[in-house]
Amino acid sequence: MFTPRPIGFVQSTYKDTAAIPKGLGAKHEAEGVLEILREFEPGLADIDGFSHLYVLWVFDRADGFDLTTTPPTDNRPHGVFATRFMRRPNPIGLTVVELLRRERGSLYVRGVDMLDGTPILDIKPYLSSIPPEQLRRGWLAEAEKRKDDPKPDQ
Amino acid sequence: MFTPRPIGFVQSTYKDTAAIPKGLGAKHEAEGVLEILREFEPGLADIDGFSHLYVLWVFDRADGFDLTTTPPTDNRPHGVFATRFMRRPNPIGLTVVELLRRERGSLYVRGVDMLDGTPILDIKPYLSSIPPEQLRRGWLAEAEKRKDDPKPDQ
Repeated sequence: MFTPRPIGFVQSTYKDTAAIPKGLGAKHEAEGVLEILREFEPGLADIDGFSHLYVLWVFDRADGFDLTTTPPTDNRPHGVFATRFMRRPNPIGLTVVELLRRERGSLYVRGVDMLDGTPILDIKPYLSSIPPEQLRRGWLAEAEKRKDDPKPDQ
Repeated sequence: MFTPRPIGFVQSTYKDTAAIPKGLGAKHEAEGVLEILREFEPGLADIDGFSHLYVLWVFDRADGFDLTTTPPTDNRPHGVFATRFMRRPNPIGLTVVELLRRERGSLYVRGVDMLDGTPILDIKPYLSSIPPEQLRRGWLAEAEKRKDDPKPDQ
């Protein structure tokens, strides 16, 4: 395999997990900065032209993992790979951010859902999307439906 | 940080990098199987309900990294974080696949661009897309345009 190393760190207003919006309809509009280490700065060349980026990062405050979890969006357990839960076999997070501007090694972005100080593993350009009409969202769509509809037996 | 461990391996018809479609307009329609190790199978509960998945995996046949690279889609160099090049500081690949069906620990998927035997690090549900009209694709859009348009001086 390989030895993960940070290419930089997230600057975010979120100091603890409880502060991060979660659950159905949570909006991730928070702005933050991806501070890329000086030695990796040449790797950012031409990144300015992309409106959106994938950020791969480490859940560095997670310890161990669970194979099933009951997420904040539901009251039923689901397999960890069907959720974005932090306690995963490989504690890697994935976030799509909007790139607002770049200043040398600092990427100013919108859509941060990481804690302040989170180590960044990789950045990739976001190139294309799955059309919404082709997406099925499994248990999450069901949980949303249960939340919106009054229960039939109530 | 953490020690990466495979949660499974990709079964793909691609035996070497040269076989994988690359470059402008490359389509990734290849089918393959994500074989999840028995011990992690409970983590797949309810994954069947999602049409598309993120797969995080290891470029296990890459060695070292470059900070800039000239990708097959262009004749100009770009920063590695503005490309999907394999020789990255953390050699992690990211692919969106369509889930066709599941049989126990085997996820039959479409959209494979990994080599046969590639170690899988994580699977996450693909939940939403950036609307195409909001996407800017930087050097890639420019390279496409140069390819489509005859050069003004020719």
